[in-house]
Amino acid sequence: MPETAPLAKVMATQGYGAEVILHGFTYDDAYQHCLELQEELGATFIHAFDDPDVIAGQGTLGLEMLSDLPDADALVVPIGGGGLIAGITIAARALRPNIKIIGVQAAGAASSRTSLDAGELRELPSIATIADGIAVKQPGALTFPIIQHLVDDVVLVNDEAIIGAVLLLMERSKMLVEGAGAAGVAALLSGAVNLQGMKVLVPLTGGNIDINLVGRFIEHGLATAGRYFVIHTRLTDRPGELMRLLTIIAEMRINVIDVRHQRISSRLPIMQREETLTLETRDRAQCDQLLQQLRAAGYVVEEAQALE
Amino acid sequence: MPETAPLAKVMATQGYGAEVILHGFTYDDAYQHCLELQEELGATFIHAFDDPDVIAGQGTLGLEMLSDLPDADALVVPIGGGGLIAGITIAARALRPNIKIIGVQAAGAASSRTSLDAGELRELPSIATIADGIAVKQPGALTFPIIQHLVDDVVLVNDEAIIGAVLLLMERSKMLVEGAGAAGVAALLSGAVNLQGMKVLVPLTGGNIDINLVGRFIEHGLATAGRYFVIHTRLTDRPGELMRLLTIIAEMRINVIDVRHQRISSRLPIMQREETLTLETRDRAQCDQLLQQLRAAGYVVEEAQALE
Repeated sequence: MPETAPLAKVMATQGYGAEVILHGFTYDDAYQHCLELQEELGATFIHAFDDPDVIAGQGTLGLEMLSDLPDADALVVPIGGGGLIAGITIAARALRPNIKIIGVQAAGAASSRTSLDAGELRELPSIATIADGIAVKQPGALTFPIIQHLVDDVVLVNDEAIIGAVLLLMERSKMLVEGAGAAGVAALLSGAVNLQGMKVLVPLTGGNIDINLVGRFIEHGLATAGRYFVIHTRLTDRPGELMRLLTIIAEMRINVIDVRHQRISSRLPIMQREETLTLETRDRAQCDQLLQQLRAAGYVVEEAQALE
Repeated sequence: MPETAPLAKVMATQGYGAEVILHGFTYDDAYQHCLELQEELGATFIHAFDDPDVIAGQGTLGLEMLSDLPDADALVVPIGGGGLIAGITIAARALRPNIKIIGVQAAGAASSRTSLDAGELRELPSIATIADGIAVKQPGALTFPIIQHLVDDVVLVNDEAIIGAVLLLMERSKMLVEGAGAAGVAALLSGAVNLQGMKVLVPLTGGNIDINLVGRFIEHGLATAGRYFVIHTRLTDRPGELMRLLTIIAEMRINVIDVRHQRISSRLPIMQREETLTLETRDRAQCDQLLQQLRAAGYVVEEAQALE
């Protein structure tokens, strides 16, 4: 596995009795190392996706889904190397020839989409996505023709949409799904695919996500939803001024997470200091209300902006 | 509901078409307000736990669990007001008279435990637990005698154990369970109850937890596991000194989350400053290794301690 593999995946694999060797930064690096090790050790190589038996095995998920919902109109399936969608597609097309099948890739690792556009297998020079489970530089020699001929469309989702889907699945469905596993839901939520009114099957294809990454997703999601709010303002540098500011915030029942002062700056008049406050707010509306209140009380206040 | 109710619970209830009125800080405050509203409005009052129909309804969970695992040796069930355990116990005792039934309460809201010890219904003066779903000041007049006569034991778990159980259920079972819902698992993990070698049923009794609280649990869990590490050290206040320190940290592949300086202190020699670094470490062993390395490089370094 690449060194970037989630600890959860490494430990789960070790839990099945395997020895796990970490190498390189992407799946493709680890794959190359794997081929070298195989030659060195004379071991049997099992490809992660470009193997007829692996594809057939993953096809059983298609059978399972269609036995749960035999009259489904559409399937939305994440694509990394393409093994899962190849298997599901072969099975689903056999049972329901006219079912709509949509593949989903991370925008930062869109190897199948790029290959489809080129009309032939292409390798991406680099990939970048939080969905490590589908971060693969090129589709397989076996899987690509299946995608090309049997899948209706391949759409892209960005990391923002993937994070949103992971959080929604946690909040509403009480399930912890990894980024790659939530890509199908992300495609539906973001509007990358529109299947309104149809009966849609979306497999949640994995839960190997490290708890610290979940923590980051939550922070990011809360900030996006206006549940974290960072403001800059100026205070006269004398006793009671910080308390006066904090009183307004406390009266709105907003929790203060962090306060930072900056005294030294050529932009600052002498005897003034800059405060950066990190706050826990209810929603975006409360953020706006706070800005209003502080301005009404005479504060020069600005919302902190992330560097572009 | 009390004002402290998780937003997830409020919104889910509104989603069923209900009007939700928030009042007071605990379940018991909300309950009192509810009785007043009922008188005012002439509405029908349905008790959250101290009602024969509610108890009977919750008893169906006991039937379900024992139909899944008919030869279970023991049941471990969270207790707030006691409705759920009363129902489950009546059902389970009818099917399997000798099954062991253990109730679990949050140590900060141990109203049933306290009442059992007193031999009569007692109201706690105050309660404090992160498991809001079982934060109730006293058991019910109906539920308490059932607990007293039919439950084998009531054990306590602290918030630390509850957080650990919520995180374990996320990491291993990919399920988001609220603090109250994970109390049974917490009792088993913490050793509050020992049922080794037995077939044990533990219902996960709720998923109403706000995503920001999950974020706090994760931060706390990571800190406990040595995945966050905060250190204090001193630097001479001149160019390059901070970089020299950070080089050692970077070479160990430790990510720096936060750096804070403190220049003004009567404890500090002039021309020295104190640095507080928040780091993302791999585990406790790496934390210790870092302390060693820094000390070997001549730094006076201390691990940050929380105020007791």
